[in-house]
Amino acid sequence: MKKHILIVPGDGIGQEVTTVGKQVLDRIAEKFGHEFTYDEALIGHVAIEATGDPLPEETLTKMRASDAILFGAVGHPKYDNDPSAKVRPEQGLLRMRKELGLYANLRPIKLFDELLEASSIKPEILKGCDILFFRELTGDVYFGKRERLDDGNTAYDTMIYSKYEVERIARKAFEAARTRSKKLMSVDKANVLESSRLWREVIQKLAPEYPDVEVEHQFIDAAAMLLIKDPRRFDVVVTGNLFGDILTDEASQIAGSMGMLASASVGDSTGVYEPIHGSAHDITGKGVANPLASVLSAALLLDISFGLKAESEAIIAAVDAVLKAGFRTRDIANSETPADKILGTDAMGAELLKNL
Amino acid sequence: MKKHILIVPGDGIGQEVTTVGKQVLDRIAEKFGHEFTYDEALIGHVAIEATGDPLPEETLTKMRASDAILFGAVGHPKYDNDPSAKVRPEQGLLRMRKELGLYANLRPIKLFDELLEASSIKPEILKGCDILFFRELTGDVYFGKRERLDDGNTAYDTMIYSKYEVERIARKAFEAARTRSKKLMSVDKANVLESSRLWREVIQKLAPEYPDVEVEHQFIDAAAMLLIKDPRRFDVVVTGNLFGDILTDEASQIAGSMGMLASASVGDSTGVYEPIHGSAHDITGKGVANPLASVLSAALLLDISFGLKAESEAIIAAVDAVLKAGFRTRDIANSETPADKILGTDAMGAELLKNL
Ligand SMILES: CC(C)[C@H](C(=O)O)[C@@H](O)C(=O)O
Ligand SMILES: CC(C)[C@H](C(=O)O)[C@@H](O)C(=O)O
Repeated sequence: MKKHILIVPGDGIGQEVTTVGKQVLDRIAEKFGHEFTYDEALIGHVAIEATGDPLPEETLTKMRASDAILFGAVGHPKYDNDPSAKVRPEQGLLRMRKELGLYANLRPIKLFDELLEASSIKPEILKGCDILFFRELTGDVYFGKRERLDDGNTAYDTMIYSKYEVERIARKAFEAARTRSKKLMSVDKANVLESSRLWREVIQKLAPEYPDVEVEHQFIDAAAMLLIKDPRRFDVVVTGNLFGDILTDEASQIAGSMGMLASASVGDSTGVYEPIHGSAHDITGKGVANPLASVLSAALLLDISFGLKAESEAIIAAVDAVLKAGFRTRDIANSETPADKILGTDAMGAELLKNL
Repeated sequence: MKKHILIVPGDGIGQEVTTVGKQVLDRIAEKFGHEFTYDEALIGHVAIEATGDPLPEETLTKMRASDAILFGAVGHPKYDNDPSAKVRPEQGLLRMRKELGLYANLRPIKLFDELLEASSIKPEILKGCDILFFRELTGDVYFGKRERLDDGNTAYDTMIYSKYEVERIARKAFEAARTRSKKLMSVDKANVLESSRLWREVIQKLAPEYPDVEVEHQFIDAAAMLLIKDPRRFDVVVTGNLFGDILTDEASQIAGSMGMLASASVGDSTGVYEPIHGSAHDITGKGVANPLASVLSAALLLDISFGLKAESEAIIAAVDAVLKAGFRTRDIANSETPADKILGTDAMGAELLKNL
């Protein structure tokens, strides 16, 4: 198979982790006889520094011309501490999602047996837990109108959904539920929000078309609680952009660390594959970032965008093997991990390649 | 001390748990020589059934005339499954918060040693954890304009904050931080939302007035994750209405169960004290609800509205004693709890009274 992959490292540890992700894609190409070509492009803070624009036209053009995108992270503390900055790294990320029509963000929470102990949640609560989140990614308060009023003393954002937006992500979730345990949880705040009531109406209206899928509605506050209390109650979950952002970050603790979680953003055109962790400036440049989320993002890319199931599984098996051999990055190590098994980003990448 | 307390049981288990809360207040009055008089009023679904209005004028009048309010819960599954219902129980709750100017919702997450094992989080992660949330309660997307557009095919809600609203809740949180470990975490989503950037600006502007308090800003997604990973990092937390709703429900898992958590809503006039759990219709009428959140709400009422510190502490000590004696309601029992120590609502109330 011939494919063109765009690498978009972005900010912070994005560069370090996508380097390993790309090495893994390269090895897969070699091993399975594919031909992957690559290009690179800027986004976020590094793009602002280079061009003034968090999503330069050139990046967007390259994105549209590629078959899939391996993405790092965006964000920089400089802007977090300056609420008044007009140009911000995250604008690049949000515009990319909108421009590429990436309305469905899939976040699988897969628990590697070896990491059962790495979580702050008790292993007996977690064991066997396997969740697939569908987070809506191009609507909600992320894209509604926002403004300052009243000489800057008041600010608002608009949480907004149209039925067609809910329907297209819900259908993806219903279909995924069919291939899994046939349970779908929809999360909203319909006891307060009109946009959530619209959300719930659409789910209720679609449900009869999927009579084999059992639908459960939860309010976001209850869901945030239940996710910790009883994570095995969750299987396929569908929710809006903001609630999905919160719930999936929280769910990362099930997998022991954000450093283990990959995501796929798909929709109308090229798919984007990225870790759910952010730019993590506190550890940037130290060579300690966990590259496994980027590696697992590469696995999702092969599976979802290219339909290369065996290749994708080979990567997951390699991750499993490396963990079984006892190797850990700092974020997934614990007090019992021998010092010589705690690896930096590149060394972890090298161990992985040995297993591929 | 002579005080007039309004009991507002509301819906579901609200009636069962406030009955115990009131018994405890009565016993305290007797023991410490106070004179508490009581009245009752309707809110939520039961008020709709009786009067058509989720917050009848009569209730509001009684509320304004009382010195403090012991509140149960509102909500009914009937409305949850009917997104198009125009009159809803929650409207009563929200209008009450607005009418009484209850802008500050305090949610202490106190961990009773005896319940260290009841949580799904590992005891070694939880030990010593003690958090005080300040949730803003009369602004945000709870009270912004909401509407259907486009023949009902689009719906929006408005997330809105004005600087004065952020400032008054922030000052309460800064002041509380001074009396505790001098650390304040503010939670927002300033990398995306304009209302969050306004929030962050206000916190940053106030910080120099409290030079002894160390301020940390977290995004809501990261906070939802950190709360599980490292709950001891949290001490005093201040956040908006929606993020506070989500984060405090999630935090309830630190205390083992929502059935243990009380809250105080205070502001311009009469304070309202209520469990953070909801109406819980699945267990309503079964006599198994945990009354301790209502009992601990009564303790907060005595402390905050009446300044009766010793009385409040007597209640907390009684709860502690009952737990130490091994008594549990179902929600906080585990597989090792002997059957004869698992009590229903009234029996738990009776044990408590014995210890007062
Ligand atoms: C960086 C930020 C804007 C982004 C989001 O909120 O969507 C991130 O948290 C994510 O989940 O991809
Ligand atoms: C019942 C509901 C409207 C309410 C809220 O969201 O504020 C509840 O969850 C709470 O936290 O008091």
